[in-house]
Amino acid sequence: MISPSIILVQPQMGENIGAAARAMANFGLSDLRIVDPRDGWPNERAEAMGVGAFDHIKVNVYPTFEAAIADCHFVLATTARPREMVKDVYTPEGAVHRIQDKHAMEQKTALVFGRERNGLENAEIAMCQGIITVPTSDEFPSINLAQAVLLLCYEWKRLIGDAPAQILKSESPAATQEELNNFTIRLMDELETGGFFRSEGLKPHMVKNITNMFSRFEYTQQEINTLQGIVSALVKSEKE
Amino acid sequence: MISPSIILVQPQMGENIGAAARAMANFGLSDLRIVDPRDGWPNERAEAMGVGAFDHIKVNVYPTFEAAIADCHFVLATTARPREMVKDVYTPEGAVHRIQDKHAMEQKTALVFGRERNGLENAEIAMCQGIITVPTSDEFPSINLAQAVLLLCYEWKRLIGDAPAQILKSESPAATQEELNNFTIRLMDELETGGFFRSEGLKPHMVKNITNMFSRFEYTQQEINTLQGIVSALVKSEKE
Repeated sequence: MISPSIILVQPQMGENIGAAARAMANFGLSDLRIVDPRDGWPNERAEAMGVGAFDHIKVNVYPTFEAAIADCHFVLATTARPREMVKDVYTPEGAVHRIQDKHAMEQKTALVFGRERNGLENAEIAMCQGIITVPTSDEFPSINLAQAVLLLCYEWKRLIGDAPAQILKSESPAATQEELNNFTIRLMDELETGGFFRSEGLKPHMVKNITNMFSRFEYTQQEINTLQGIVSALVKSEKE
Repeated sequence: MISPSIILVQPQMGENIGAAARAMANFGLSDLRIVDPRDGWPNERAEAMGVGAFDHIKVNVYPTFEAAIADCHFVLATTARPREMVKDVYTPEGAVHRIQDKHAMEQKTALVFGRERNGLENAEIAMCQGIITVPTSDEFPSINLAQAVLLLCYEWKRLIGDAPAQILKSESPAATQEELNNFTIRLMDELETGGFFRSEGLKPHMVKNITNMFSRFEYTQQEINTLQGIVSALVKSEKE
């Protein structure tokens, strides 16, 4: 059974990595990706807290968030509060349903969890297709990293516990994050040349907004090719 | 809103009491009952782990399990494996539904969690109206005390919350079809100039696909403006 990857971005405490691994093993998830863990890898505290969970899951460490999501098609970020970005918002239950649909289309999916202290950066959220908000009490909303992982893993197991996945194939495969990212990088280059970023001060904000806009939508590979073709044609426009 | 009491039977680690309290506050439960805690009460480690959760819940300590459940009408015990007793078995979701029914009948309810090391004794389980089994993986079934509390509290909140779909207001209103259409028409013009449509025969098909791609996504007005700006910049690119 395919399950979503769990991505921990710059986790600080080994205990949390261990508890996350344990939650994954408890509920049958198997692909853990760790981005730049503060205390390196392997980590003794993670092992201790995992009490054997690491025998049941695969762990890979990545230097950057981009690398960790490169082969994924559909990535959701867990974050307590929506930022000033237009994003699809999922409940944990809604998220796992959507992920199951994506798997039926043979897409790779991931759930992203931010740093204990600061969560995810806006630039990281901008690269995700949507966000998950756990519906906690308004008066006491903050849950910890491992608890958030636990709830999502639990929802996943609960969902797949019953439903056999149906195959729902689209005509063109979904674009991977890497293909999307390559397009975005190229677009930014061309925009730079075209004087789009009026000042260096404004540029990061504009880059974030454009990245977010193109990440919100779930493109097929063919559509990314079309977008590349569009940029090429526009750059050539009125030049002959 | 009435919520089930959470009963921890002879908890050993203050950290787990704190984490359980935190989970309760996160999901709006308020009545914590502790039976004969190993390290007494109050407990500094519980306070530290609770990070303020104890301001949101009521705590009572009881000398015996019997005393803790005395005023309750319907009590469910969480335990990993059914013992050799005839008992109703609930999933976490089924349990909170049943509890809601009991509340409608003005009954008091409680969820019981056993000791970290040994769980609940048969004599204690025998006093409960049913048991709850969290559907963990067969290969790695054991979850810790605070995690079990978290999952039940989460299920409770999910049931009673009927999450009023959170309003995610974007700063910019959604684009109208007219605004979208104006953009698409302009894009096609520029693409024509740039030699994008290789032949007149292919053009209708390509136009349809591009129109479809930009229509699938729900843009804001601001995003349409950004797209217009992108086209302008690309057309100017490499021309100075």
